[in-house]
Amino acid sequence: MSLTNASPADAAQAAKSASHVLATLSADARNDALTAIHDSLAAARDDILAANARDLELARQAAADGKLSQSLVARLDLGKTGKWEDMLKGILDVRQLDDPVGQVTLRTRLDDGLELERVTCPIGVLLIIFEARPEVIANIAALAVKSGNAAILKGGKESTESFVAISRVISAALDKTQVPNGAIQLVTTRDVIPDLLALDRYIDLVIPRGANELVRYIKNNTRIPVLGHADGLCSIYLEQSADPAMAAEVIVDSKTSYPAACNSLETLLVQKSALATLLPTVATALATKGVELRCDAQSKAALQNTPNNNLTLADATDADFATEFLSLTLAVKTVPSLSEAITHINTHGSHHTDCILTAERAQAEQFMAAVDSAGVYWNASTRFADGMRYGFGTEVGISTNKIHSRGPVGLEGLMIYKYKLRGQGQATAGYGEGEGKKRFLHQSLPLE
Amino acid sequence: MSLTNASPADAAQAAKSASHVLATLSADARNDALTAIHDSLAAARDDILAANARDLELARQAAADGKLSQSLVARLDLGKTGKWEDMLKGILDVRQLDDPVGQVTLRTRLDDGLELERVTCPIGVLLIIFEARPEVIANIAALAVKSGNAAILKGGKESTESFVAISRVISAALDKTQVPNGAIQLVTTRDVIPDLLALDRYIDLVIPRGANELVRYIKNNTRIPVLGHADGLCSIYLEQSADPAMAAEVIVDSKTSYPAACNSLETLLVQKSALATLLPTVATALATKGVELRCDAQSKAALQNTPNNNLTLADATDADFATEFLSLTLAVKTVPSLSEAITHINTHGSHHTDCILTAERAQAEQFMAAVDSAGVYWNASTRFADGMRYGFGTEVGISTNKIHSRGPVGLEGLMIYKYKLRGQGQATAGYGEGEGKKRFLHQSLPLE
Repeated sequence: MSLTNASPADAAQAAKSASHVLATLSADARNDALTAIHDSLAAARDDILAANARDLELARQAAADGKLSQSLVARLDLGKTGKWEDMLKGILDVRQLDDPVGQVTLRTRLDDGLELERVTCPIGVLLIIFEARPEVIANIAALAVKSGNAAILKGGKESTESFVAISRVISAALDKTQVPNGAIQLVTTRDVIPDLLALDRYIDLVIPRGANELVRYIKNNTRIPVLGHADGLCSIYLEQSADPAMAAEVIVDSKTSYPAACNSLETLLVQKSALATLLPTVATALATKGVELRCDAQSKAALQNTPNNNLTLADATDADFATEFLSLTLAVKTVPSLSEAITHINTHGSHHTDCILTAERAQAEQFMAAVDSAGVYWNASTRFADGMRYGFGTEVGISTNKIHSRGPVGLEGLMIYKYKLRGQGQATAGYGEGEGKKRFLHQSLPLE
Repeated sequence: MSLTNASPADAAQAAKSASHVLATLSADARNDALTAIHDSLAAARDDILAANARDLELARQAAADGKLSQSLVARLDLGKTGKWEDMLKGILDVRQLDDPVGQVTLRTRLDDGLELERVTCPIGVLLIIFEARPEVIANIAALAVKSGNAAILKGGKESTESFVAISRVISAALDKTQVPNGAIQLVTTRDVIPDLLALDRYIDLVIPRGANELVRYIKNNTRIPVLGHADGLCSIYLEQSADPAMAAEVIVDSKTSYPAACNSLETLLVQKSALATLLPTVATALATKGVELRCDAQSKAALQNTPNNNLTLADATDADFATEFLSLTLAVKTVPSLSEAITHINTHGSHHTDCILTAERAQAEQFMAAVDSAGVYWNASTRFADGMRYGFGTEVGISTNKIHSRGPVGLEGLMIYKYKLRGQGQATAGYGEGEGKKRFLHQSLPLE
């Protein structure tokens, strides 16, 4: 591991070379490295928190000058109750996950003495670009080592001191392990993101961990595949047969349990026939949580007809149905039936997570088949879209990509496979349809 | 299906809309469409071959004027023995493959009455850009329909007449099926490739079927993921313990059975201690097939010391070890041992398919673990890297990408998955570590 002021190209090339060694290490060697990282960080607690305090001091000053948001300052703070302990526990959690490397996912006997095997292996070199949270360094270093991938880490400038302190400790810890020097590259120099994004020769996957703007910038400025999502515009379709209390509970949780999350609700589609029967209950429940509703004409009329003074209503514009509010604002639109709800979501949504609330199984199954999103839910909060909640043990990110990994991504998303073919000197010319040619057996073998 | 002179954006948008319907069709509906395509093409044989004859006439003229290669003319010819029949049989072969849509690959009980399922589904809209071979249209249309993906097909100008004729037939055939109009878009207007490559809003995956230059151009000019490979620089490492006759047979097959193929051998790495014992046998066998050897100093010296007058030897330059010759030329380099061979391949190769020839299992396993390629072989010809030979039933292409699909890609490469979550009104706020909170069960369920 090296904390580098080397050029981005040198850092990336070094990471690539290291990745070829890292990919061949045993699970024990990789797990031992995680133990070493954990123990060294635990021993260096005071130094790291002192460095973090220096970052915090500067950030608080910048926030006081109006140059930084208070929420960013909060995200910087490693001393916040439980954060340090969670960071350390996260490393051990990753260590105890099943080894993702070397799993055989296909075995075929092509011919006697000629066996094909598909085996999981690391992707190669990951570039992780993140903003404020310094604990992400430890988390990502652990995921990279566990999955056998080299990683280049580029942190935000607000967390530089914390980043350098944590990096030094991880670096020294890895020096005593089999993980090659160079497998984790920490880039602290500024303004190198454009250079890094051009290094598709060495870098195999970019994982941005930050705000929409960061993700969008990265997606628009590299040929390297990007794993993540820029937008999380989640919708719920409220169908007429849904139970009112259930609908209110799911919608309130989806909207209000963490409004700034990407899996939070942004658009509520209400079946026309449910405007009078279901929407008032839902709107009242949302109002008690302080949610403002931006309604189309029909839904607004329906709510104005109900005796409730606490509602905050506004007229929706077209733009509201393409907006990720990330706050206590919800766009409400009336649709005649399921098919219009599906079309609206497929056209206006971000293909992240969408839900139908209904008592009718056929409606739900049709919705889940037709909506083109990573998560399609029936009677459950959109906020279940999360790697920990899915039981993946860890989360690399949530992807709205249409290839490789989609939805919450666990360690599996950091793996690819290779085909191993073991023969006894077979040539292809001997196989085919003609006379005297051998036929392939193509016999599927058990995955031991 | 529409044969369109619409703008690329309109075609792509129509394909996207159609993809949402196509994704929900049953396997029977998709298979019936393949039957319809097959039967209609069979019935229209004479018309299509007449159109193909017009393309051929123009191409032969262009070839006579030196504007087109003879091999391109050959690839255009649908009337060549067996080609038409193979095209029709290919559609039926695809029809009888297992349905790739709707396979459940993970089931987890998150809680009582809250079940997560991961289900395979189509990617969405494919853009397939191909050059001369007109039969690819039928092949790709069949793959798209089978996998539930919409497709935009852009053919080369040399095959325009054939393309239009086949397209009309497929279009009319699909009109009588449940496959929505617009699911297969055929773009015949010229110079639209840059426009299509900009439509990442609608197009999910680009599959180029053509020469290296086409693939490289596409990879460099789009943000849409590209499935394929620009280069196929395959290497064989000849280790000292290999059987000489076996080595000669595998190397001859890898180099000469189809020199223009991407899975053909381009670089032979010879262990220094095998220069005198193995290389002469191999070189003699290659010479009988007319292969020119471009040797480094050590391997050239070794061959000049052997009594053989038929060898064609030249001095290798550095560039030769980064060249995909696609002809009967082979670069030969001496390496001291396995680790240098691995480093050479990882640095100079194209991560396509590489092979070790050795009698020692430990050497082979180390090679296969450390070489970062889609295919890593032990004692077998590199030319086995092929979807049909792997038993995939069909081949979409061969990918050297590090994510999604790698190596020969079958129907699986045209699929992604979505997570379906079926609940009974669960909210996330009820789950967690605190008092009164529910714990997730995360119980793995059988994949029925």
